Amino acid sequence: MTTTTDARERLVATAQELFAAQGVGPTSPRQVLAASGVGQGSLYHHFPTKHDLAVAAVGATVDEALTAARRDLEAGGPALERVIGYVRRPREALAGCKVGRLTSDQAVMDDDGLRDVVTAYFVRLLDAVTATLRDAGLPEAEARDRAHTAVAVVQGGYVLARATGDPEAMRAAVRGFVAMLKETP
Amino acid sequence: MTTTTDARERLVATAQELFAAQGVGPTSPRQVLAASGVGQGSLYHHFPTKHDLAVAAVGATVDEALTAARRDLEAGGPALERVIGYVRRPREALAGCKVGRLTSDQAVMDDDGLRDVVTAYFVRLLDAVTATLRDAGLPEAEARDRAHTAVAVVQGGYVLARATGDPEAMRAAVRGFVAMLKETP
Repeated sequence: MTTTTDARERLVATAQELFAAQGVGPTSPRQVLAASGVGQGSLYHHFPTKHDLAVAAVGATVDEALTAARRDLEAGGPALERVIGYVRRPREALAGCKVGRLTSDQAVMDDDGLRDVVTAYFVRLLDAVTATLRDAGLPEAEARDRAHTAVAVVQGGYVLARATGDPEAMRAAVRGFVAMLKETP
Repeated sequence: MTTTTDARERLVATAQELFAAQGVGPTSPRQVLAASGVGQGSLYHHFPTKHDLAVAAVGATVDEALTAARRDLEAGGPALERVIGYVRRPREALAGCKVGRLTSDQAVMDDDGLRDVVTAYFVRLLDAVTATLRDAGLPEAEARDRAHTAVAVVQGGYVLARATGDPEAMRAAVRGFVAMLKETP
């Protein structure tokens, strides 16, 4: 017998997978229920509405992505190397960014609560990269601009990889950025 | 009375608008027909299937985007300034890239014919930016990597602007890239 915590976690994890595979709009709570294997009562107990389930699942995806970024950015070593570690981390380029893709999901962008979760992710990520570039010696304004460039290279790298069907397109974008980053004071 | 060329153009232009606003998947030929104001016979005469209409409309969007990029990249002036002109061109950041957004449209990516049109756009765009960076004096491999970075910054800039609801996020990404580009040989 599954505990109520297990059931909640399985519902959230299943929703995360289905959202990543097919988008938030087309995913019904009924589908999540069927794929999770938990009882129907659990779904409605934990998540009375699709909105509640979506906020929990999108929130979990965002937390995981932010934790991974902070692991790179707050690791040991020189600050510039940490930024390079963040942009170079191996990514499933053809799958797309689990958070970035939400910005093209109309069901997310039309829902204030969900959109706010996505916005908060990018604001925090940009703050963390900016702070690391300040640690590397850049003045605030340059650090902030360059942090936007770094995050844009990763997000745009996903777009290029998906568009060309070639993960190498993302690696090339990152390589070009890292080469410039190393050459600029 | 509209000529047959007028009707075809209006159908394509209307499909482009609806695709940009709501995606290819949810747009029906019937909607395009209604919004275009042309006769039903014209639609089936020019575009027997939705696929035919989508290939024409996505093809037109790609042609327009490539023409705009080439205008910047093949303008007069030093090669590096032309690349800067391309990344700096004012864009409707919150609307998203009309071509880039297609990579998140499952109806496009699941259709070989449509996906090929999107792929060809990015391959040609990357070739054009690479050629301009070669003109600026970069060796082939560096020119190609940096061209990927430039296009990724634009595509990622759209993602950041949409995610944060702030067009300034795209401008910051471009500013950071241009500053680095000017400082690197």
